[in-house]
Amino acid sequence: MAKKWVYLFEEGNAGMRDLLGGKGANLAEMVNLGLPVPPGFTISTEACLSFLANDFVFPTDLWSQTLDAIEILGEKIGRNFGDSKNPLLISVRSGSRFSMPGMMDTILNLGLNDESVIALATQADERFAWDAYRRLIQMFGKVVLDVEGLLFEEIIDKILESEGVKTDPEISPAGWQRAVEEFKKLIQRESEGSFPQDPWKQLELAIKAVFRSWNNKRAIDYRNATGISHGFGTAVNILAMVFGNVGWDSGSGVAFTRSPSTGKHDFYGEYLTNAQGEDVVSGARTPSEVHHLKDEMPEVWNKLLHIADTLEKHYCDMQDIEFTIERGKLWMLQTRAGKRTAAAAVKIAVDMVNEGLITKEEALGRIETDHIDHLLHPHLDERARARATMLAKGLSASPGAAVGAVFFDANTAEKKAKEEGMDVILVRPDTTPDDVHGMIAARGILTQHGGRTSHAAVVARQLGKPCVVGCEAIKINLKKRQFAVGEKIVKEGDIISISGRRGEVYEGSIPTVAPSFEKLNELKVILLWADEVSRLKVWTNADHPTQAARARNYGAQGIGLCRTEHMFLGEQTPKFQKAILAETEKEFQQVLDEILLPLQIEDFFGIFKAMNGLPVIIRLLDPPLHEFLPSKEELLVAVTRMEALNQTGPEYEQKKKLLDIVSDMSEFNPMMGLRGCRLGLTRPALNKMQVRAIFEAACDAAKEGVKVFPEIMIPITSHVNELKTIQPLLEKEAESVMEEKGIRVPYKFGTMIEIPRAALTADEIAQVAQFFSFGTNDLTQMTFGISRDDAERKFILDYIDKGILQNNPFQVIDEKGVGQLVAIAVEKGRKARPDMEMGICGEHGGNPASIDFFHRVGLNYVSCSPYRVPVARLAAAHAALRNSGKPTPQPE
Amino acid sequence: MAKKWVYLFEEGNAGMRDLLGGKGANLAEMVNLGLPVPPGFTISTEACLSFLANDFVFPTDLWSQTLDAIEILGEKIGRNFGDSKNPLLISVRSGSRFSMPGMMDTILNLGLNDESVIALATQADERFAWDAYRRLIQMFGKVVLDVEGLLFEEIIDKILESEGVKTDPEISPAGWQRAVEEFKKLIQRESEGSFPQDPWKQLELAIKAVFRSWNNKRAIDYRNATGISHGFGTAVNILAMVFGNVGWDSGSGVAFTRSPSTGKHDFYGEYLTNAQGEDVVSGARTPSEVHHLKDEMPEVWNKLLHIADTLEKHYCDMQDIEFTIERGKLWMLQTRAGKRTAAAAVKIAVDMVNEGLITKEEALGRIETDHIDHLLHPHLDERARARATMLAKGLSASPGAAVGAVFFDANTAEKKAKEEGMDVILVRPDTTPDDVHGMIAARGILTQHGGRTSHAAVVARQLGKPCVVGCEAIKINLKKRQFAVGEKIVKEGDIISISGRRGEVYEGSIPTVAPSFEKLNELKVILLWADEVSRLKVWTNADHPTQAARARNYGAQGIGLCRTEHMFLGEQTPKFQKAILAETEKEFQQVLDEILLPLQIEDFFGIFKAMNGLPVIIRLLDPPLHEFLPSKEELLVAVTRMEALNQTGPEYEQKKKLLDIVSDMSEFNPMMGLRGCRLGLTRPALNKMQVRAIFEAACDAAKEGVKVFPEIMIPITSHVNELKTIQPLLEKEAESVMEEKGIRVPYKFGTMIEIPRAALTADEIAQVAQFFSFGTNDLTQMTFGISRDDAERKFILDYIDKGILQNNPFQVIDEKGVGQLVAIAVEKGRKARPDMEMGICGEHGGNPASIDFFHRVGLNYVSCSPYRVPVARLAAAHAALRNSGKPTPQPE
Repeated sequence: MAKKWVYLFEEGNAGMRDLLGGKGANLAEMVNLGLPVPPGFTISTEACLSFLANDFVFPTDLWSQTLDAIEILGEKIGRNFGDSKNPLLISVRSGSRFSMPGMMDTILNLGLNDESVIALATQADERFAWDAYRRLIQMFGKVVLDVEGLLFEEIIDKILESEGVKTDPEISPAGWQRAVEEFKKLIQRESEGSFPQDPWKQLELAIKAVFRSWNNKRAIDYRNATGISHGFGTAVNILAMVFGNVGWDSGSGVAFTRSPSTGKHDFYGEYLTNAQGEDVVSGARTPSEVHHLKDEMPEVWNKLLHIADTLEKHYCDMQDIEFTIERGKLWMLQTRAGKRTAAAAVKIAVDMVNEGLITKEEALGRIETDHIDHLLHPHLDERARARATMLAKGLSASPGAAVGAVFFDANTAEKKAKEEGMDVILVRPDTTPDDVHGMIAARGILTQHGGRTSHAAVVARQLGKPCVVGCEAIKINLKKRQFAVGEKIVKEGDIISISGRRGEVYEGSIPTVAPSFEKLNELKVILLWADEVSRLKVWTNADHPTQAARARNYGAQGIGLCRTEHMFLGEQTPKFQKAILAETEKEFQQVLDEILLPLQIEDFFGIFKAMNGLPVIIRLLDPPLHEFLPSKEELLVAVTRMEALNQTGPEYEQKKKLLDIVSDMSEFNPMMGLRGCRLGLTRPALNKMQVRAIFEAACDAAKEGVKVFPEIMIPITSHVNELKTIQPLLEKEAESVMEEKGIRVPYKFGTMIEIPRAALTADEIAQVAQFFSFGTNDLTQMTFGISRDDAERKFILDYIDKGILQNNPFQVIDEKGVGQLVAIAVEKGRKARPDMEMGICGEHGGNPASIDFFHRVGLNYVSCSPYRVPVARLAAAHAALRNSGKPTPQPE
Repeated sequence: MAKKWVYLFEEGNAGMRDLLGGKGANLAEMVNLGLPVPPGFTISTEACLSFLANDFVFPTDLWSQTLDAIEILGEKIGRNFGDSKNPLLISVRSGSRFSMPGMMDTILNLGLNDESVIALATQADERFAWDAYRRLIQMFGKVVLDVEGLLFEEIIDKILESEGVKTDPEISPAGWQRAVEEFKKLIQRESEGSFPQDPWKQLELAIKAVFRSWNNKRAIDYRNATGISHGFGTAVNILAMVFGNVGWDSGSGVAFTRSPSTGKHDFYGEYLTNAQGEDVVSGARTPSEVHHLKDEMPEVWNKLLHIADTLEKHYCDMQDIEFTIERGKLWMLQTRAGKRTAAAAVKIAVDMVNEGLITKEEALGRIETDHIDHLLHPHLDERARARATMLAKGLSASPGAAVGAVFFDANTAEKKAKEEGMDVILVRPDTTPDDVHGMIAARGILTQHGGRTSHAAVVARQLGKPCVVGCEAIKINLKKRQFAVGEKIVKEGDIISISGRRGEVYEGSIPTVAPSFEKLNELKVILLWADEVSRLKVWTNADHPTQAARARNYGAQGIGLCRTEHMFLGEQTPKFQKAILAETEKEFQQVLDEILLPLQIEDFFGIFKAMNGLPVIIRLLDPPLHEFLPSKEELLVAVTRMEALNQTGPEYEQKKKLLDIVSDMSEFNPMMGLRGCRLGLTRPALNKMQVRAIFEAACDAAKEGVKVFPEIMIPITSHVNELKTIQPLLEKEAESVMEEKGIRVPYKFGTMIEIPRAALTADEIAQVAQFFSFGTNDLTQMTFGISRDDAERKFILDYIDKGILQNNPFQVIDEKGVGQLVAIAVEKGRKARPDMEMGICGEHGGNPASIDFFHRVGLNYVSCSPYRVPVARLAAAHAALRNSGKPTPQPE
């Protein structure tokens, strides 16, 4: 039996999207619903794939099935395709599984030729006929025969000029007739063929052109960019023409069943009388608000409202529809899920659940994590942004928008912000812990160097500040207090605007639109539903009580990472330096006991209170000690200068001594150096002080009735013997504090899995550690052998450009490599300790694609920065739904 | 039925070593051979373990079985243990599976007491009797009752003084009688008990003391140090006493069946007439050469020779024996495989194969890899070394010994060596590629910093130069051209001696003993046998034709790693810098074509010729480019100084520009930076030039009749797409060179597996790469997350001290972690490409324990530095034998 390539609309349905494309399937569905759709049929995507695979030859029977279908169309309409007297006109439209702007779209009025245009002119209207014919030749020339579109426009321009008119609708029938002649000559000249007079030839070439357009460069680029498979192919939809431009009782329009901008349940759209669909969007005439139809064509209006309602209830989603009114009769040309803003998406989803149209799970499937991102961060006003001057583009490091005066050092930035109340953007070559007070004071951060996981980026995300990094186009001159972009100079105090989401820097002030989580009631509802379906919990990375409180407000169910070293940054750094520089063990211990211990207790106490009832994972000191000291290069420059100038007084001596200490501590590859538990094993007193602080705070809080669940995390473990050596020491300290305080609190000791060897030997490590937290930042660095501080700047972006990497592995977890290690560790860890708590606290904890992986691999929670918590909650729900086996709605 | 704890010698045999200990099993074996062994029995190691596990209580039946055995002994001798008139005297000796100096050894003359000593004095000789008794009390006091040995010696000293004599043998019977009295008082005073008069009590306590000695501190330390299990326990051997000190027809001796120093087939040893075994080794009297027995006691001599021959043929190994002659009758007290020097080990093994005593496989099992190491490298004369003053101890980085004058910079070192012919030791804080010419000129290298895989260490091994690194005790002052060790100052030009094998630095000149591979004929035979049984081939890491030729001479069967960057070091560096600093792509290409290409062709051509018929793996450029430029810090200092002094002329400008370039190239963690294929993907022209050079050289060599097998290795691969992008480009270049040259050569393209991700995704990578070479240095760094340049200096040694790590993972492969990745990669790689060539070219390729692992995991070859090739050949044979399932001889 011959394979079926061609489906009449009445043979299809919405479920056949893969075979018929989105447009074709929805047209079929509307026919099934009894809605007025022009007669038509769809040539399947399978036909396209066969054509492409077989040297551009139609598969057997395709053409004969097409002829049969065209005949049925003719019968329904009462016209014959190819007939010169009573011609059936058709449109040919592409339509793949997903809407794809890169592909050929539409050719109208197919079937006309030099003979039948005369018949049409006689039967209908002369101007209409010649206009229709020239439209056919123009579209056909452009999309089938590859003639440059501008050349057609030039011809029309000449005709406008010769007729002394301004717009196309004013052109006379004779003018359009002249256009037809000129167009035909143009095609003869510019293409290899000519415009075919045989309508069947027109049809064959049009179908082939649609098929071929699947593989044109724009389409391939688009699919590459959006991750759509190249193996789907496109369908071809053929419809009998209906005309909205045959009089004032005709028209065309597009509409949404609800507001795509606010989500309000209002029919919303525009239409033009006496016009075809393309005229509505071309801007030549201003379309009317669709509500005017109520007065102008009440019957059509009622029918349209009814159809909109039917479609929405049927599809259970807001629809974007196209319609044409031909002499008072309404025809539906398209329906599809409508694109919408973030706010609309959330409102529509919640409303539809309340209206009983969809389930909560379906509602969750309708919200994209980008929507939440967009809702929560201030962003530049779109219209103003479009008009503004972009100075440069860097890497989007932390979302949100900020406007402020440029300052080039943290101290000035802080001063201007605090003392003068200025909005400040801190601009630096890159940042170090020394700049953190300036970052806190600034509205946004811009760095010339560094990648998305550079210090600036990590801290900005932690602070929830907009941040653009790696913006190499700005050449900062710290001495002159300015940066240059090409010829343009931006001086200290000049205003710029940055979009952290887009990684863009603009000249001057652009208004920002700022949201408030408190007021986003529908979003809160959605997130509660998300929590109901998620299996992964969402915890947060928080180092201070205020961060903890904010994260909790955003719905965090625990702290997955409290970085104790962050407590020693900023104004506390000198105190910590005092410990590092202590000359005797006694002095060292004294600084720990008298200065650092009380500081840490205070912070921990605040965090425990904020997280009352929830677990708090506190990581012991992680970075190498030299990170807390001045940079070696700075000291080297200072000392060299003093030596050259013979300024060898006490200040010199002091600097020289510090330089010696820093030199001695410096490492070739500090990322893999003396840090984490390696440091703890070398100087246990530091870790002991930290554990004491945690338990003193926990016991004090518990005495006030706070429910505390401290979990102490030992970082940079690579060998179980490290834990076996340090953990008992620390457990003993914990026990003695509880003894002293006369109260017991539940606690755990566990470790980061951030070194490949730890993952590979997780079975051994799990015999000591009571929980695992995957540090996927470092794990990615070591599994790939790339340094995050260097790689983005040096080659990662180049790799993505060249297609060597699909994603930046610091943003989206590399499932095959890094993910494989996570999977190995989960399996081995659970084998040794089946009920083990496992989570992830790397940057990937806030990335939806990565969250999906963490769900699949069986973690208990992801931990991310407070501002990412809402996104992660939704992503966790998506992961649960996507992997439940139940179908989830595909985003359009 | 009661468990058997006690074995008469006639019930045991040499195969029961685990149960009876080495000494007991060999005594039993001698009895079975019909050799004259004093009657005796062994209490099993199982009894010891039971005793230790049960609160120091003898297991049921042990005591009664002992009594039975003692009775049998008495019957054989015609004396009764515990009898005061006719006492049976016995010795009690410990003896575990392996010989262990940490354990209690021997108590003689057990069974004597105040009564029976009188009987003995009457029957035998008064002096002998009292001497025997005091020996018992002295030994018993020391080893059973824990009385400090020195206190006994003090008493003897007093007696010597009071009798006015110098040596023990001169002491009168009355003197020894007095000693007995004093010893008993001493014991009363110093221990909790007293010397037991009841012989059965003596026996019980002695057995218990032997059992307990298994767990004394020295024994535990020894087992920890040598890797012997704590679970074996020790046996107790009880023998009827025979006496070599009962007249001039008596004596004791020790002997070897062949020379333990040269291996010559000569009976070799010493003896003393009228003496007990302990007197032979105590040095109080000078023993005679054992050959004198031939004249003194010809019958005994003949018997001894016959026994030696019997034992050697029976055990098929050189034996170390102890004997006693009691009134002309020869008794055998011990036999065991004799310890021997490296030279002896090799000669004995080869001779025994030729004599038909052992198989080649057995011969291989007799040679330790340390033997080869010792034979091939010059070493400090042992006697001279023992007398010399050690200045400091660092890390042993490259074996061998060197003596020379200290110089602190490479230029001076080179000048002194070349122009003045001086023997030079290069002493540096650490080395960089800039120092290589000095290292080449020096006899040896000493660095203050750095670990065993630091630049100095790696290059020294490559060069075969003795090297000590990480010698932190020497404080180098480059300005003063001296180093200090404590108070001691060593100035430029002063002579020192270093032992690379021991990691030691000595003041002054110590004679060295230097071997020559050419003359080590027996070793060559052994290594040929090794090659016959090995499955792993041994290749070499060689960067220059001379290295290649040397390695081939040592038996290398291919080059596993030719580091092309090493060709750019030393005097070639400026040429390579010219390429890096090129301002345009054109200039860059010009430097490549005109300067670097001819250089590389010449080197490759020489290497191909040297390796005629064997494969040569050439690795494309691996290190980051900034490694070839001056250091950033040096430039920073120079520029800062010039700025401070306002010396801003052209030299300043040049330095400043270079500083900018170096700063731009610098990386936070260069080990994980822009290097290897990442560099190749960024600047393909460099790799293309290298591939061109390889194939021009290969084609030219092939035209001369040389059989070339170039294999091009792409380093630092982490993702298959890297290979997919670069490899086709390079293959094309290879093809076009062969086209130009009009000749084809067989070739392969492959990759290093040195990044965890590459190992984890080896199945994908094997679809492109035609061979794998495991770079276990970098793989260890990234799997452990430790930087080799920092870790040894900062904490690895501390970890080994604390028992966190058993070995330095850069020396011995970490099987559980790094090895797991290797195993994963082998399995996945072979699944994708079953016949894939896989080898290892990291430092571990020359380490015997690691070679065993590489054998087990199924690699095809190990590649190591030329000087390690002989060691690796033997280790590969050992691995094959050890894992063949056939038993291999245990080293004593």
